[in-house]
Amino acid sequence: MDIAILLYDRVTALDAIGPYEVLSRLPGARVTFVAAEAGPVRTDSGMLTLLAERSIAEVRAPEIVLVPGGPGEVAARAGESVLEWLRTVHETSTWTTSVCTGSLILAAAGLLEGRPATSHWLALDALRELGAEPTLQRVVFDGKIVTAAGVSAGIDMALALSERIAGAEVAQAIQLGVEYDPQPPFDAGSPEKAPAEIVQLLRSNSRFTTGEAQPA
Amino acid sequence: MDIAILLYDRVTALDAIGPYEVLSRLPGARVTFVAAEAGPVRTDSGMLTLLAERSIAEVRAPEIVLVPGGPGEVAARAGESVLEWLRTVHETSTWTTSVCTGSLILAAAGLLEGRPATSHWLALDALRELGAEPTLQRVVFDGKIVTAAGVSAGIDMALALSERIAGAEVAQAIQLGVEYDPQPPFDAGSPEKAPAEIVQLLRSNSRFTTGEAQPA
Repeated sequence: MDIAILLYDRVTALDAIGPYEVLSRLPGARVTFVAAEAGPVRTDSGMLTLLAERSIAEVRAPEIVLVPGGPGEVAARAGESVLEWLRTVHETSTWTTSVCTGSLILAAAGLLEGRPATSHWLALDALRELGAEPTLQRVVFDGKIVTAAGVSAGIDMALALSERIAGAEVAQAIQLGVEYDPQPPFDAGSPEKAPAEIVQLLRSNSRFTTGEAQPA
Repeated sequence: MDIAILLYDRVTALDAIGPYEVLSRLPGARVTFVAAEAGPVRTDSGMLTLLAERSIAEVRAPEIVLVPGGPGEVAARAGESVLEWLRTVHETSTWTTSVCTGSLILAAAGLLEGRPATSHWLALDALRELGAEPTLQRVVFDGKIVTAAGVSAGIDMALALSERIAGAEVAQAIQLGVEYDPQPPFDAGSPEKAPAEIVQLLRSNSRFTTGEAQPA
């Protein structure tokens, strides 16, 4: 099973690596990190470089395509060649997926028109403006398109997808393999659960949401 | 705050990237990925390459050092120069941390002798053989040494550490920023919770635990 994970300048690393760590454990999985051009890709913080092994031109028919998010104008930064590639690979993919604001890229490619989808909670308005129907679920399945909420939600999405692809036993084995028994120290992971002042802080200050390098 | 994350051949990516995604959002954080030699590092699956920006020789006094895990004989693969580096940086670090079998590397460096610590659930016996006192908690604080359980536990550790470093408000803001409101599809993330046959499957077959490339 060929899985292509898209990279682009200032991508958010965990959006890609969370699902990678799950999906790469599927029996027969072959994950390829791709970008408009093969080579090193800098993440949003400016502190990490991932390698895109192949250019999108070299990967024409992945069974799973995964689009991670990143801060700001992700669709513009991903570029028209990437949007065109997404339209093409979506025609033959088994699953077309996104994490966080990766859904804005899918939407910009025209793949979410009128469809239920999700994104980072701060990007749901932008998702609507691009033609999708924002949904507050952490993982949204709509036909073969699967979108996940912000950053860490890609892990949950990948496990749910693993169950669809390989069954509950394999998905549970992968979950136990990566010891995913989450115990966050706070119940503050969604805007409905976090204290109102924390939600307001994030609405007014992008430092905690984007991971972008900023003055201390 | 200088944060050094160690890479080495066949490291497990999420062990490193989960905590990176949290800790890089701390005010004033400067994360550097280091390895025995600077340059590309291949992860355990053989499907992903991360870049070590600097050699360990160039990074002598990080305030936080983080050692991710990987399959097999991680301490031997990390190498004696890395163990020596860990002993040195531990002398001046504020926090010395590990995820998954990264604790075996800390133990091999002599830093966990007689101390409570954790690791991937399949590596707790190996941790004991290296002189530590295995503990079943997901995150173990013992003085300035912090160890986390398998792979995904690094996210929980990094949030707990963020609270110690910068307070509850900042830790909650980071949690909300990465939308860490986990909703795994199964309650199968620890050997106490997973079905017995899944636990047995993982004890007899490393494919789901290590992420190593294997025949399909």
